[in-house]
Amino acid sequence: MKTTALPGFRDFYPDDLALRSHIFATWRSVAGRYGFEEYDGPPLEPLDLYTGKSGDEIVGQLYNFTDKGDREVALRPEMTPTLARMVAARANGLRKPIRWFSIPQLFRYERQQRGRLREHFQLNCDLIGEPGPLGDAEIIALAIDVMRAFGLTAKDVRVRLSDRRVLVSLLQKYEQFQGERVRIGFDAIDKMERLSRQETVRRLEEAFFGPQEIDHLFRVSQLRTLPAVLDELESCPNGPAVGRTFAAVVNALGDMGLAEFVDVDLSIVRGLLYYTGTVFELFDAGRTLRAICGGGRYDNLLLAFGGVDLPAIGFGMGDVVLAELLKERGLGPTATAGLDVFVAAVTADDLPHVLALAHELRDAGLRVEYALSVVPLRKQLDLAAARRARYAVVVGPDERARGEVVLRDFEEKEKAKAQRAVARDAVAAEIVGLAGQAAS
Amino acid sequence: MKTTALPGFRDFYPDDLALRSHIFATWRSVAGRYGFEEYDGPPLEPLDLYTGKSGDEIVGQLYNFTDKGDREVALRPEMTPTLARMVAARANGLRKPIRWFSIPQLFRYERQQRGRLREHFQLNCDLIGEPGPLGDAEIIALAIDVMRAFGLTAKDVRVRLSDRRVLVSLLQKYEQFQGERVRIGFDAIDKMERLSRQETVRRLEEAFFGPQEIDHLFRVSQLRTLPAVLDELESCPNGPAVGRTFAAVVNALGDMGLAEFVDVDLSIVRGLLYYTGTVFELFDAGRTLRAICGGGRYDNLLLAFGGVDLPAIGFGMGDVVLAELLKERGLGPTATAGLDVFVAAVTADDLPHVLALAHELRDAGLRVEYALSVVPLRKQLDLAAARRARYAVVVGPDERARGEVVLRDFEEKEKAKAQRAVARDAVAAEIVGLAGQAAS
Repeated sequence: MKTTALPGFRDFYPDDLALRSHIFATWRSVAGRYGFEEYDGPPLEPLDLYTGKSGDEIVGQLYNFTDKGDREVALRPEMTPTLARMVAARANGLRKPIRWFSIPQLFRYERQQRGRLREHFQLNCDLIGEPGPLGDAEIIALAIDVMRAFGLTAKDVRVRLSDRRVLVSLLQKYEQFQGERVRIGFDAIDKMERLSRQETVRRLEEAFFGPQEIDHLFRVSQLRTLPAVLDELESCPNGPAVGRTFAAVVNALGDMGLAEFVDVDLSIVRGLLYYTGTVFELFDAGRTLRAICGGGRYDNLLLAFGGVDLPAIGFGMGDVVLAELLKERGLGPTATAGLDVFVAAVTADDLPHVLALAHELRDAGLRVEYALSVVPLRKQLDLAAARRARYAVVVGPDERARGEVVLRDFEEKEKAKAQRAVARDAVAAEIVGLAGQAAS
Repeated sequence: MKTTALPGFRDFYPDDLALRSHIFATWRSVAGRYGFEEYDGPPLEPLDLYTGKSGDEIVGQLYNFTDKGDREVALRPEMTPTLARMVAARANGLRKPIRWFSIPQLFRYERQQRGRLREHFQLNCDLIGEPGPLGDAEIIALAIDVMRAFGLTAKDVRVRLSDRRVLVSLLQKYEQFQGERVRIGFDAIDKMERLSRQETVRRLEEAFFGPQEIDHLFRVSQLRTLPAVLDELESCPNGPAVGRTFAAVVNALGDMGLAEFVDVDLSIVRGLLYYTGTVFELFDAGRTLRAICGGGRYDNLLLAFGGVDLPAIGFGMGDVVLAELLKERGLGPTATAGLDVFVAAVTADDLPHVLALAHELRDAGLRVEYALSVVPLRKQLDLAAARRARYAVVVGPDERARGEVVLRDFEEKEKAKAQRAVARDAVAAEIVGLAGQAAS
């Protein structure tokens, strides 16, 4: 029998799952602080949810098939179409702005490359129904605060912030940048980091861009400060207005005390066609990894997808790059929790008493184990150590006669405290008290 | 565009997700108390993981397809094959007994019936490497304690407990019950509740069972107490030995204080071929719903699946029947949490201060919102109420000049306490303190 998962799919053994749980718990905690509520949809959806608007090119990257009821279906490659479908179905009953998050597992059939996965988990946060710049700042602040909650600082991670409205205005300074040519310009900017300048120039020339336009495109994409962007916008169509909105986003993040995380960076466009305004990506400061998170405003998507005209902004943050960064910085969870208590029996006659006490300790909320067969005390205490138990409770005939048990604290150095007799009926409260002290 | 999920698949809006989260959190908490560690595997697996041992009949119920790399794959219909694969891959490095749990989403293509889903979530708990009856009792106690953690009592839910070794011994009292005929006998017992006595008799006669054998089968399946079973076993092949094991399971559950939940019931066999010993199901006491949970011992499965010879016992508990029962008994989660604090601005000039304060409150771990555009104070407080905020903090120019804010407690009846000025820099600590008091 095969003992491996499909290529590109992960098994999560308990240690791996502990890191994943740490990531999910942090995501949920920070989203909750922003008043976001969790939702989820099916991992299998009708295929046309993905092909309807984006066309058929996407099918090459989907896990799609015909089900036994002759339906064309696909494993979800992204969450936004499901979100649009769900919001559209109940648009009138939902109070705006809608603050929703989800942690879906997503699937893409990509040609296998080293380390490239075909599934990942992704935090999706979306704010729907608010068109203004404070909505944008709210979403970006949430992404930054997730980083901070993991212990990452502005020295570790950076937000690269841009706005497509700003780029459109700047490019339209020259009238050649209209309609389809804006799209080609965006595409060139989006790929600049991965291509040589020479190759970018070649592609733009092929699309009949002249030397002046090409220079302008490069210059715009290299703007890196808010004053420089605002200055440049002065002379552009609709420039001052889009500049005010862009500045409002940057300044709101400053008011929140998050300015040090944010770099204005007009080379950020984002690949997806549907973004309409603010766009941003979150990277490790050294840029040795792929993007940790990307998002932006997509004010027309819900209308196109679900027939509901609501502005929206959101981001997706995957678990894979984030986990790499956390491991690299030693910011994973502390070792998976060991047991609180191991209950041991001195003789076989003590076993029923062990069962009763173990169950009582579990009812008190403690993590408890005991040997599941009759083995010598020595072996039981070995198992307690292997399970990293903090305490052992030993039940023996002599102690039972006195209504007592022996409580052993594996972390206590002082001998008198490390092992002592405790009244049988007081031991649960005693350990809960000690565990409470240790936790606080 | 379609605004519905595929038939048999669920959308989880925030209220639905809150119930799901409550179920998952309770599952995790109780499994943790038993020292169980969480794992997970891929939702998509090689098809032969499911057909290899069970044959091709199962394919009719699978979501299976050929992927773009020409691999035969299937959405997981159950977790045990993945568990077997994962344990087999690292069998030597894992300390026994292995105590693992998982909460996979599982998929079955079933012909659509009213209310029948094609996906569900299932708590899977497995104890691997322990052959004795205390392992069986441990797993059954875990299932019962999950029920208790939800607030369900022995009046609400019942464990129906049997053992295939006991049934084999009882049936083999007559020599006719050997090999294939035992399997036919099991199948008849398994279906007795759904079929008329007449139909069961007809089927057994068709398989050449005589009147005496048929009577014996009915009588055995109607045994309902441990003494009756032990008495009956006295005269059966290997009877006293299997009786001791069965009694040890029942008695261990008694030692844990869980006897009131357990009904010995030899009509329980479980459909799956791979069970080898103890089998049990958990039902609502009135038996108006399908089984909440089912499990048993499968000592040969890991060898067959993964080539590793380890005894094992486990159960699966789905979210659907459980959720129905919890709703029916009013044991769902308390209303989804509202906000802790809504921060409101009196004038547009106060907005930067609102942003700073809101962020500070969020850093203190509070759930915080504020209006994302400039609206009158009245409307902001309406939004605060709609979001079920416990507190509002109002930031105005006069208060700011004095270094203060107004703190309003929506649940305080006493007027002087319901609204009062608080030093701006003390408000976060003040609310954290109040929230802490309210929680304790």
